[in-house]
Amino acid sequence: MELAEFFPIWNKLTPEQQNRLTQGARYQHVKKGTVVHNGSMDCAGLFLIGSGQLRAYILSEEGREVTIYRLFERDVCLLSASCIMRSIQFDITIEAEKDSALWVIPADVYRQLMDESAPIANFTNEIMASRFSDAMWLIEQIMWKSFDKRLAEFLIDEAALEKTKVLKITHEIIANHLGSAREVVTRMLRYFQGEGLVKLTRGTVEILDEKGLESIKDS
Amino acid sequence: MELAEFFPIWNKLTPEQQNRLTQGARYQHVKKGTVVHNGSMDCAGLFLIGSGQLRAYILSEEGREVTIYRLFERDVCLLSASCIMRSIQFDITIEAEKDSALWVIPADVYRQLMDESAPIANFTNEIMASRFSDAMWLIEQIMWKSFDKRLAEFLIDEAALEKTKVLKITHEIIANHLGSAREVVTRMLRYFQGEGLVKLTRGTVEILDEKGLESIKDS
Repeated sequence: MELAEFFPIWNKLTPEQQNRLTQGARYQHVKKGTVVHNGSMDCAGLFLIGSGQLRAYILSEEGREVTIYRLFERDVCLLSASCIMRSIQFDITIEAEKDSALWVIPADVYRQLMDESAPIANFTNEIMASRFSDAMWLIEQIMWKSFDKRLAEFLIDEAALEKTKVLKITHEIIANHLGSAREVVTRMLRYFQGEGLVKLTRGTVEILDEKGLESIKDS
Repeated sequence: MELAEFFPIWNKLTPEQQNRLTQGARYQHVKKGTVVHNGSMDCAGLFLIGSGQLRAYILSEEGREVTIYRLFERDVCLLSASCIMRSIQFDITIEAEKDSALWVIPADVYRQLMDESAPIANFTNEIMASRFSDAMWLIEQIMWKSFDKRLAEFLIDEAALEKTKVLKITHEIIANHLGSAREVVTRMLRYFQGEGLVKLTRGTVEILDEKGLESIKDS
């Protein structure tokens, strides 16, 4: 993958601007589990995801987590460069969920391009609008969707993402994604197991009845 | 108030661009209770709030509400022109909470200025980042803050906003702000009343012990 592929507005940049982006970018590999951006502690820059999978989450004072969105190949991560925008007043943590490879555009290089180029500024706008939409979706979920529906949806999405019905995932990790407590997840998974929807073993959740989960999700 | 006062980047616009904004803007008065923007149904344009108070909220299929943010004098409302950004994929409703006066910049006029002016595009970015931050704050509230704290905070904020300890507000309206059910609000208010924090009469909530509410909020 080339850098230009991340920017639909690449051709609206001058050759000099394209060059500045290319020269500024560092390509790096990160191991699964690495925290690549940590709240307001750093301002690593813009991440362009070449391969792998990352998740962006927020953390409560008590250490509880909730996933706000995930990043896949071809995604651009703006909030890792949150210092470039004064009005971003929240802290987000970004962690590699799988071994990943990404380009990092330093915050100062990107900020300068935004200041001089309307196409780059508007591209940035669209990325932010898209993450904002993810956050609004999450609000609707947590306000109005019961936990059984959210868990059913999470299991279905996870199976699609991992291309397997046998999910290697702990109840703790599921709780961290959904912003819930481990006990609540365990209780609901056991209920699902009782209904014949899943089978639980240590460290795995096997989906036995995907249609059943779908009907809970859509009920 | 003049239009220029809403745009800290006014001097970075050409006289022709300033003129286009000024010529395009319509000034209008809206009565308390008026819905000025309704989800994806319309794309009224950018609102610049001259006076009054508006609230932006989302609506569930069952008609439940939750307030995402409020708009006061000098605020700019971007989501009333959500059609100008493809990636905004949620519906928001905006309603005047008090008699208000606002300028409306038509969406097409604003979109064109964003396309050609990096300062306007970056200004728009900051507004969106600020609303995005409001939404993230709300997520933290509903995930990690118990309802008694949220209600105590709402009453304190409302008293400050209305400059009175006798709030003319129904339990239904409080529920709509907080995304809760009326019964839940009533139950908690009665508990507050039992603790001597508030006094309830039909249609009003009187704050008797603001320090007590503060200590619940901060506990």
